[in-house]
Amino acid sequence: MQKIKLAILGYGNVGRGVEYAIHQKDDMELEAIFTHRKPDQITTVTDGVKVYSIKDAEKFLDSIDVMLLCGGSASDLPEQGPHFAAMFNCVDSFDTHAKIPEYFAAIDENAKKSKKTSVISAGWDPGLFSLLRVLGKAYIPKGDEYTFWGKGVSQGHSEAINRIDGVKFAIQYSIPIENAVNEVRKGNNPTLTARQKQIRECFVVAEPQVDLKTIEHSIKTMPHYFSDYNTIVHFITEEEFVASHSKMPHGGLVFRTGTSGRENMHKQRMEFLLQLECNPEFTANIMVAYARAAYRLFKMNDFGAKTVLDIPVGLIVPESMEELRKTVL
Amino acid sequence: MQKIKLAILGYGNVGRGVEYAIHQKDDMELEAIFTHRKPDQITTVTDGVKVYSIKDAEKFLDSIDVMLLCGGSASDLPEQGPHFAAMFNCVDSFDTHAKIPEYFAAIDENAKKSKKTSVISAGWDPGLFSLLRVLGKAYIPKGDEYTFWGKGVSQGHSEAINRIDGVKFAIQYSIPIENAVNEVRKGNNPTLTARQKQIRECFVVAEPQVDLKTIEHSIKTMPHYFSDYNTIVHFITEEEFVASHSKMPHGGLVFRTGTSGRENMHKQRMEFLLQLECNPEFTANIMVAYARAAYRLFKMNDFGAKTVLDIPVGLIVPESMEELRKTVL
Repeated sequence: MQKIKLAILGYGNVGRGVEYAIHQKDDMELEAIFTHRKPDQITTVTDGVKVYSIKDAEKFLDSIDVMLLCGGSASDLPEQGPHFAAMFNCVDSFDTHAKIPEYFAAIDENAKKSKKTSVISAGWDPGLFSLLRVLGKAYIPKGDEYTFWGKGVSQGHSEAINRIDGVKFAIQYSIPIENAVNEVRKGNNPTLTARQKQIRECFVVAEPQVDLKTIEHSIKTMPHYFSDYNTIVHFITEEEFVASHSKMPHGGLVFRTGTSGRENMHKQRMEFLLQLECNPEFTANIMVAYARAAYRLFKMNDFGAKTVLDIPVGLIVPESMEELRKTVL
Repeated sequence: MQKIKLAILGYGNVGRGVEYAIHQKDDMELEAIFTHRKPDQITTVTDGVKVYSIKDAEKFLDSIDVMLLCGGSASDLPEQGPHFAAMFNCVDSFDTHAKIPEYFAAIDENAKKSKKTSVISAGWDPGLFSLLRVLGKAYIPKGDEYTFWGKGVSQGHSEAINRIDGVKFAIQYSIPIENAVNEVRKGNNPTLTARQKQIRECFVVAEPQVDLKTIEHSIKTMPHYFSDYNTIVHFITEEEFVASHSKMPHGGLVFRTGTSGRENMHKQRMEFLLQLECNPEFTANIMVAYARAAYRLFKMNDFGAKTVLDIPVGLIVPESMEELRKTVL
């Protein structure tokens, strides 16, 4: 079997996760890692992988089937996505929900021009959770949908705290409120505000001799991030931070609850739970699965930008549709 | 907006569920119901629906966009599926897992010949649970998959008991064994036999003056259906049967649990739970969602047999992909 040749562009937590993920697959191999940093300063997590500067990526047009863009959504992808979609089949996990239409359009234009296929926003939210929301809308059309995030580390919220003066390290956990989850689970279809759904718990290492009350106030009143939530702030030592808060767990719940039939008398419920000890490694596995799909679509001359909603689910695993009909259906 | 014109062929529990489901939709309308029985003996659950004999279905080639085949998998669909796939775009919920490849091939040949599109096995298992199994394999490739059915009524098992001499009425509930579910949920990836996963609980109304011990023995030793399980048999009165066992609840759990990363040190888990007060009405909503997809694929000249694994999930809801990118992703 001809293996699919992949490359990683941007070597952070997700990039390393992708490297582990490819290492476990029989139908693909890792051709190269491209980094912003000096290539000789990078230690890869598996053996024998070549590391190059991002500037050299264009020299590999003929040897890479799919490029996995593992940079961040805030500053890397808005520029890298459209740029590399014009050269390679690409996959990313772009997650700035509000900017997806605009990002999709930019990628679609460039990919179609050069007859390449790019899958955008292939993570778990957006991504897997989006799929589940659509399945819920379709199968329980008279109903309500609820997404709870956590318990887990929100990267964006942690970084927002880190930007406050006097903060040395910070991490933020999103925690679903149990009462709210239970009301949804019972099929009561409650109306819930952000504050009623999630708690935000923060662990902060402060610089010496700063006013902790000021930091706490800055966090709790930060618009968009914290002001709409009940936020708990703990100040801890650097030792405790390193010992207890260096993992990246996450997860969440997607519910669809509603009714069907005569006078809507029958309650119906779909509930999906995700529990991850390592969030970036799960995102990495999703990206690798959609790299497989991107390559298959490219081979079928189906070019342009795609999301997880455009792609038949059977294309993301190594098996053929024929095998899947025998073994999974 | 031009509404999609649907018809129901086979008017049992699922057929009635489909009728309710179409009634709730803005983008589709019910053109006709076709039945094996005498049309004037049928009372429809919504008003103003025309009922015809199945023999007359061929007269409606020009006025029906998608035919929903609501017959059973044992005797109706193996014959009706290929027959009507040659005339109409069709959707069914064929659920004899082992015969899906052969059924698919028969439908595919006829549908392609006449340039129609048929979606087969669009129910919850096979169907929704199949999709979840593929997502699990893709996103947690190093892992195990577990499906538990219930608590709910298994139609096939209930019918198997009904065929025993001396049984007047019978219903069988499949019940997941809590210990097994908990072991899976903890991420212990146990090896489980059928007996360790499910209990089968049966409620039987016997004919007068038959030997209950004989019936109980016939049930518990029935190969495939009961002999591999711990089976509990209760004999009850007809009054109790009617009062307490006339609903059709069902549901189930699909788990994927495994590990990722360096030395597979991180546990990852996906868990999906379905809880239905009315099983056939849920299946009906799935079929209607895939009728929408079948019609869209037909309009794109994508003919032949399809399963839920071949179809982009975004096609099953009324919204366009553009709207979904804005609102769901």
